[in-house]
Amino acid sequence: MSRKSKGINAERELVHMFWNTNEWSAIRVAGSGSSPFPCPDVLAGNRIRKLAIECKTVNAKNKYLSNEDINQLNKFSAVFGAEPWIGVKFKSDWFFLSIDDLKKTEKGYAISKELAKNKGMIFEELVEK
Amino acid sequence: MSRKSKGINAERELVHMFWNTNEWSAIRVAGSGSSPFPCPDVLAGNRIRKLAIECKTVNAKNKYLSNEDINQLNKFSAVFGAEPWIGVKFKSDWFFLSIDDLKKTEKGYAISKELAKNKGMIFEELVEK
Repeated sequence: MSRKSKGINAERELVHMFWNTNEWSAIRVAGSGSSPFPCPDVLAGNRIRKLAIECKTVNAKNKYLSNEDINQLNKFSAVFGAEPWIGVKFKSDWFFLSIDDLKKTEKGYAISKELAKNKGMIFEELVEK
Repeated sequence: MSRKSKGINAERELVHMFWNTNEWSAIRVAGSGSSPFPCPDVLAGNRIRKLAIECKTVNAKNKYLSNEDINQLNKFSAVFGAEPWIGVKFKSDWFFLSIDDLKKTEKGYAISKELAKNKGMIFEELVEK
């Protein structure tokens, strides 16, 4: 499977997870990699909260995000009125991190599985926060 | 241009219109015609309001919407916490109608340009409502 297909499948899985709660709705954003405007990969909402989620699937031990990725997520979230979140899938485990929890590197941000486990929320915690 | 491309272009134009206000953000929903879950074509938001918009482009005098179209828009909007709107583009003019403003037909709903002009809002009214 291509990296792109893998990413889309992970986003679809996350959209399903939200709908399965019976309290949340979610959609995938079209052209999230190529839009001229900032946008997240997935947007979820219920009557009270809105979540803008940048999704990453990880094979290696670490995942890196660029400053641009994070700036775009922050910009969209501020204008739309949503909470910015990073959803990281290590094999079959999803973790959700706030931007403050990411480790700053010279060129951007890094997430290790250890960091994700220690600082991140699992899905059930994210939706019940 | 195919009907599908025309629809996508109209959605992109609408997304641009929201961002150009400097107060609203908007995204196109991926797979809005084929998703297993209810979803609108465009989702717009600012810190206060969220709008779920079903977009239609119209060449003929009348545009018809199915009961299913409207049910899906209502369902998504209720769960996500958004206002449901129908955005209709007659040639280059956009009008925005609430579901209550549509004319009920035997099989669904109809919008004529006259109805859109009389009952609908123009973009500037929609975003300043």
